[in-house]
Amino acid sequence: MISVSKKILPFLKPSILQSRYLSTNGEYFLIRKDEMENFMERCMLAVGTQKLHAKSLANCLIEADYRGHFSHGLNRLDMYVRDIKEGTTFSDREPIVVKESEATALVDGNNLLGPVVGNFCMHLAIEKAKKVGIGMVVANRSNHYGIAGHYSMQALKERLIGLSFTNTSPLIFPTRANKRTFGTNPITIAAPGKDNDSFVLDMATSTVAFGKVELSDRKDQVIPNSWGADKNGNPTTDPKKVLNGGGLLPLGGPEESSGYKGYGLNLMVEILCGILSGSLYGPHIRTWQTSSGEANLGQCFMAINPGNFADNFEDRLQDLMDYCRNITPVDKNKPVLVAGDPERIHMKTCDEKDGIQYHINQVKYAEDLAKNLNIEPPKARLFSQ
Amino acid sequence: MISVSKKILPFLKPSILQSRYLSTNGEYFLIRKDEMENFMERCMLAVGTQKLHAKSLANCLIEADYRGHFSHGLNRLDMYVRDIKEGTTFSDREPIVVKESEATALVDGNNLLGPVVGNFCMHLAIEKAKKVGIGMVVANRSNHYGIAGHYSMQALKERLIGLSFTNTSPLIFPTRANKRTFGTNPITIAAPGKDNDSFVLDMATSTVAFGKVELSDRKDQVIPNSWGADKNGNPTTDPKKVLNGGGLLPLGGPEESSGYKGYGLNLMVEILCGILSGSLYGPHIRTWQTSSGEANLGQCFMAINPGNFADNFEDRLQDLMDYCRNITPVDKNKPVLVAGDPERIHMKTCDEKDGIQYHINQVKYAEDLAKNLNIEPPKARLFSQ
Repeated sequence: MISVSKKILPFLKPSILQSRYLSTNGEYFLIRKDEMENFMERCMLAVGTQKLHAKSLANCLIEADYRGHFSHGLNRLDMYVRDIKEGTTFSDREPIVVKESEATALVDGNNLLGPVVGNFCMHLAIEKAKKVGIGMVVANRSNHYGIAGHYSMQALKERLIGLSFTNTSPLIFPTRANKRTFGTNPITIAAPGKDNDSFVLDMATSTVAFGKVELSDRKDQVIPNSWGADKNGNPTTDPKKVLNGGGLLPLGGPEESSGYKGYGLNLMVEILCGILSGSLYGPHIRTWQTSSGEANLGQCFMAINPGNFADNFEDRLQDLMDYCRNITPVDKNKPVLVAGDPERIHMKTCDEKDGIQYHINQVKYAEDLAKNLNIEPPKARLFSQ
Repeated sequence: MISVSKKILPFLKPSILQSRYLSTNGEYFLIRKDEMENFMERCMLAVGTQKLHAKSLANCLIEADYRGHFSHGLNRLDMYVRDIKEGTTFSDREPIVVKESEATALVDGNNLLGPVVGNFCMHLAIEKAKKVGIGMVVANRSNHYGIAGHYSMQALKERLIGLSFTNTSPLIFPTRANKRTFGTNPITIAAPGKDNDSFVLDMATSTVAFGKVELSDRKDQVIPNSWGADKNGNPTTDPKKVLNGGGLLPLGGPEESSGYKGYGLNLMVEILCGILSGSLYGPHIRTWQTSSGEANLGQCFMAINPGNFADNFEDRLQDLMDYCRNITPVDKNKPVLVAGDPERIHMKTCDEKDGIQYHINQVKYAEDLAKNLNIEPPKARLFSQ
């Protein structure tokens, strides 16, 4: 029996509600992974993206949602749609190898969608790693490429270690500085264990993402002073001060808790991306969520073949991960995890529910996007908490 | 005129005091860089280290002191002396390349001194980077190798980017865990700017070093809760609890300030070192400051040739570093720095004073070591504050 509150109804067409999944006190939505991925692809096709490029983007965004990193999935679809629609990002060409050796390559991303550039580069890095043990490919003229882990994890299928880095628009205050200068410049490494287990680190070099500050603000909570700074660069516990002209702090937070290490890592990423590739870098990158000209981001992709080093890599990594997971936790309700476990838990929940759980605002967002592009929205199933 | 307080006199032989450098209220000591380096070499030779190995170690330790990282310089000399003397570390052989490709190598460190293994591997990585753009060399059966930056910085002389990583004895609590499981596993990257300027990040993946906790304890200060945990893994602001059976927290500190990112980086280093090399790793590494059997540490060395990527790397890096240094600071007395600047300031001071400033306890330590080994101690000059 369908029961939808008035608050929810305006956002949904009856056609997309599947009665067999509905409860009587529904307030959240499930959308099947393939259903949402197809929707993302349709959106991109509707604005003239070529088929394979649209598929690459959809595949990258759905992986973010599936892994529980909603900020980098459906949430950003309109940005990519807008960039293609306005011609800020291209889709009528392919990335170009500018310089190459057995182990390295410099790629001109040709201002294509980030995942198109990223897949091209990661594929090339993997090919090189298979031949000479390591491949390092650096791209300029790229665009936002979604979750960094999407690229490092491509190496796992080949039983290789994958790494990736990207620069991004300025949001972080360097230690001691009164100006937002660097992006959240992520670091990711993925390494294969046994039986499809793996280590997947995918982290911004800021202490937290902006989204976490926004969430605390909505809940009227104070935040740890390691998360962000006010508009003058002073670390603060007031989320409003971070959101109103302030910015994020590098991992570690203020200087006394070693924020300069996070700042150093942030610059390491910038060196491997913008400085090495000849793209824009640091303060020269356009403001977040603007589209004045090419983004011209720099990105770095690496693959390493454990076969070129000591035998039995996967056995050792599995032993290490299992060891960590079996350490007695401080709080028995919070088990010790390794990087990638929170995402694994989220994906398992999605699989059990046969769908990704979206907030009502996200479903409305997808509905609005579908309406604007005159395409079919994704089929959502309403559930109660 | 020589004037030495009674408190200081017992630690010093008159012969090592150079009268022309002495003031009337002397309380600190200067030792010339080459003087101290020679002393370190003499110590190693006295216990049977072969000449080139002794030189390698002395060169690594003096660099730590010169850069202001006293914990990794003279301070650790007795450990290396003991390891050679007791036969726990060897000096009658050389490292061996076990497996090799154009871009990679696996090296058996043959249980030699860490700097002997490190120099061998970094040299090999640099050779490979010159040929194919990147070189990655991983070693097992190594020993403590001093400051990680000693290796990354070797790439600077060749206008290359250098990186290095090492695993170390367990001192860090993984996020949520009640057991010290991982070492302070450092990350270093050095990259060349213009006119001998450079970016040199050299950081442990713990929030701070044990030494900082000890210092706060001596001053009866509370510490930020991101620095360490008590013996049960609970973050604490009491340095005594960290020192008495507790341990360090990964960069970021407790879970709410993203300590799991530091823990993830710590494991990234472990993967590139212990897991890839087949050495000991994580909890299996011997306890710090013990010498039961081989240390069998794992280490990773990389060199990247900017010439294989976009032209004018050094110009861009210089622009980036200059930009950072010129950002208006929050506190006008604390300028914005880039990684490597604090060390540069320290080295400049040493050069101006024509010596490295040592604490009286360090001078006494050198004196004692000299006495035990029946060699000449370094010449120290006494100064007043």
